[in-house]
Amino acid sequence: MDKQRCAARFTGKAWGVAGFLACTVAMALAGPAEAARAAKYTGKGELRMPGDYRQWVFVGAPVTPHDMNNGKAAFPEFHHVYIDPASFAAYRKTGKFPNGTVIVKELANVGAKSSASGNGYFAGEFIGVVATVKDAKRFAKEPGNWAYFSFTGADGKALASAKAHATADCNVCHQQNAGEDWVFTQHYPVLRAAKPAK
Amino acid sequence: MDKQRCAARFTGKAWGVAGFLACTVAMALAGPAEAARAAKYTGKGELRMPGDYRQWVFVGAPVTPHDMNNGKAAFPEFHHVYIDPASFAAYRKTGKFPNGTVIVKELANVGAKSSASGNGYFAGEFIGVVATVKDAKRFAKEPGNWAYFSFTGADGKALASAKAHATADCNVCHQQNAGEDWVFTQHYPVLRAAKPAK
Repeated sequence: MDKQRCAARFTGKAWGVAGFLACTVAMALAGPAEAARAAKYTGKGELRMPGDYRQWVFVGAPVTPHDMNNGKAAFPEFHHVYIDPASFAAYRKTGKFPNGTVIVKELANVGAKSSASGNGYFAGEFIGVVATVKDAKRFAKEPGNWAYFSFTGADGKALASAKAHATADCNVCHQQNAGEDWVFTQHYPVLRAAKPAK
Repeated sequence: MDKQRCAARFTGKAWGVAGFLACTVAMALAGPAEAARAAKYTGKGELRMPGDYRQWVFVGAPVTPHDMNNGKAAFPEFHHVYIDPASFAAYRKTGKFPNGTVIVKELANVGAKSSASGNGYFAGEFIGVVATVKDAKRFAKEPGNWAYFSFTGADGKALASAKAHATADCNVCHQQNAGEDWVFTQHYPVLRAAKPAK
């Protein structure tokens, strides 16, 4: 249930505000059937940039810098990876990524290699956002029903919406290498810890 | 306002459930004055292990591995750093860490150094939790009013609660090296991006 539906349901009722808030809580606690709401699309079917992902559930932050890849890293930055809260709740309950799961990967360059805590890698500034969405209906033709999106234009500027990548761009590598259902759970301890025991 | 106060306020009223939920929403939206609630203490004044920090706001994930520190890293792991949501909301509004701020640093060992995305550092398993709390009343004698806690016992097992470290253990280094108010904001792009423009 989204906010508009919450509003429509309670408009005009005597307990309107409390009811709306209760509905909002219900929305926040929504399960897998509601998870698809995290993905919003334009009229042309482009995925809109998720607006609040930094308050989603963080799952892991791999870093694959240039200086560990002969200066030619395919992804020379920190990846701050998040899952939308409703899909995280569903995953924690079922151990499966529900239809509608959105996973955002925010890119931050390497800002420093030493600090008071020692030598290492420390995130600098944000330089981009990419996302993947699982949707059996909308992405019926994609392997695993996962589609991939980059919110950086050819000119390097941020995009408000993005069309799906070709399957070969991202999906194939995820299919071949990800730990579980196209998701690199082998690098995301938060997801592994959340997965229910069999 | 905490859950018990929410429950007490609405018990017996006709719109009890809706009111409780509305109150809970109000609690979730609470500002700096309420932020202290993220820290809970035992009767002996030990900080209780925060229970839901993996759903708090992630701010950054430095890694300072052994192999970049001659095998003698002081902190040879990934640090997944989170701030409690109410204090994050206050920081985003005021640019200051409010009284009651709780910052949790969850430790994950290095699980892999290569993946399909290239060579780098990838988190393995969780190995510990530490936290810091800003409280002008409770920690009046600590520089900056920040106290530090480790939830790992001498036997390596997780602790349900922990007493504050001596000032020299953690506070001094933070005071001397942290970017802002004892917090290493120079390594936390989420906080830098959230800080309001002057």
